[in-house]
Amino acid sequence: MTRYKLTISYDGTKFHGFQRQNDLRTVQGVVEKALSKMTKGKQVNVFGSGRTDAGVHAFGQVIHFDYPGMMPAENMLKAVNSLMPLDILVSSASIVDENFHARFGVKRKTYQYRVDCGYYTDPFKRFYTGHYPYTLDVDKVQIALKDLVGEHDFSSFAASGGVIENKVRTIYSATAVYNKSNDELVFEFTGNGFLYNMVRILVATLLEIGNGRRDVHDFLRLFEVKDRQEARGTAPASGLYLKEVFY
Amino acid sequence: MTRYKLTISYDGTKFHGFQRQNDLRTVQGVVEKALSKMTKGKQVNVFGSGRTDAGVHAFGQVIHFDYPGMMPAENMLKAVNSLMPLDILVSSASIVDENFHARFGVKRKTYQYRVDCGYYTDPFKRFYTGHYPYTLDVDKVQIALKDLVGEHDFSSFAASGGVIENKVRTIYSATAVYNKSNDELVFEFTGNGFLYNMVRILVATLLEIGNGRRDVHDFLRLFEVKDRQEARGTAPASGLYLKEVFY
Repeated sequence: MTRYKLTISYDGTKFHGFQRQNDLRTVQGVVEKALSKMTKGKQVNVFGSGRTDAGVHAFGQVIHFDYPGMMPAENMLKAVNSLMPLDILVSSASIVDENFHARFGVKRKTYQYRVDCGYYTDPFKRFYTGHYPYTLDVDKVQIALKDLVGEHDFSSFAASGGVIENKVRTIYSATAVYNKSNDELVFEFTGNGFLYNMVRILVATLLEIGNGRRDVHDFLRLFEVKDRQEARGTAPASGLYLKEVFY
Repeated sequence: MTRYKLTISYDGTKFHGFQRQNDLRTVQGVVEKALSKMTKGKQVNVFGSGRTDAGVHAFGQVIHFDYPGMMPAENMLKAVNSLMPLDILVSSASIVDENFHARFGVKRKTYQYRVDCGYYTDPFKRFYTGHYPYTLDVDKVQIALKDLVGEHDFSSFAASGGVIENKVRTIYSATAVYNKSNDELVFEFTGNGFLYNMVRILVATLLEIGNGRRDVHDFLRLFEVKDRQEARGTAPASGLYLKEVFY
């Protein structure tokens, strides 16, 4: 058995998320099916750095699997790519030792979130951005982002459905860049871990702050109250990209 | 009754084409449903400049319909847009007289076709380009495009399923621009009419010419033989855009 680490990018539009589901097209399911062709039917289990929901994209998702056999990493990359549909691309492959684990070894992750701020959305951005056609004071968003950096209890920002008890996470950086040419606000968050839907809830809250519907330092209050009902909104899946995973 | 002309753009990825079909999400179906909300249930028939297939996009599809009532065109634009899903946008609206017909009044149409020439396709281009990762001599493509311009019998380039007897059409311009920055070849065709799948068959033939698998002047032969079996391939729907319709 040889353990391979692959970095993959995918357009999440036509996937029912990352995680294998019977009869539904998922990223894990498609990759496992390709690998079982290479092993002549032997099941190979794929482990991802984490799940992505339906419609969520990835520039740099990381997976690992144990392959019954051995080939150079470059050959594995070509072999898997030749079996991938066009909306998944393997961008790099390497052989790793048995201590590497795509999920348990994660040190940091970076997510990107793209918001289309135009009054009308461009139809060709529909599956690739969130849409916020309301008043938005980017300066307020920038101030609020500073409150996110550091170690905090993110209980207010965890969707129900998660099973993780400890909701303390560290955010190393949280930025937003407004691009006038395409009227988009692009967020980036790097942290040691993210709870279920956490980035999408953070973005929805940041947009409400930028709109003036919340105090610019509302994050400080939300960290204290630890109540999901207080953060309310969830930005749509279509704007979210898993950008990079660090080990 | 007031006749309105609307120009709409749409991302065809999640539509089963333009034409109304029971229980399937189509552009015509979605627009007619929106209009019937505005008329409190009264059916309004929408006429398009022509059909687009599943996965085909539009920057400037034109439709018309007779609305039981009267409002300024700007209000119609806002009202319809407020009922559109985010993957359709009404970009302009005007009131026209009863002689205007979106289909029968067409003088010229321009289609665009985007080809991703990279060895691996970018997953985020999957639903927005065709993919041709083979040798491609753009100079040969340019020479072949000149043969297309003018009045020709396009019988070799009409998919079965069309019912139109006369397959003579005039192409006013046929161009290709290679963009190095994103490794894309972008075709544009303007003509007085296009047969079913004609643009996609022309593109597939042009790519074979650029690849050297066909003579650079093979179009002259194909116009003569009038045999769909000779042109063979059809480029994928995902690369095709109805760019503009002229009346």
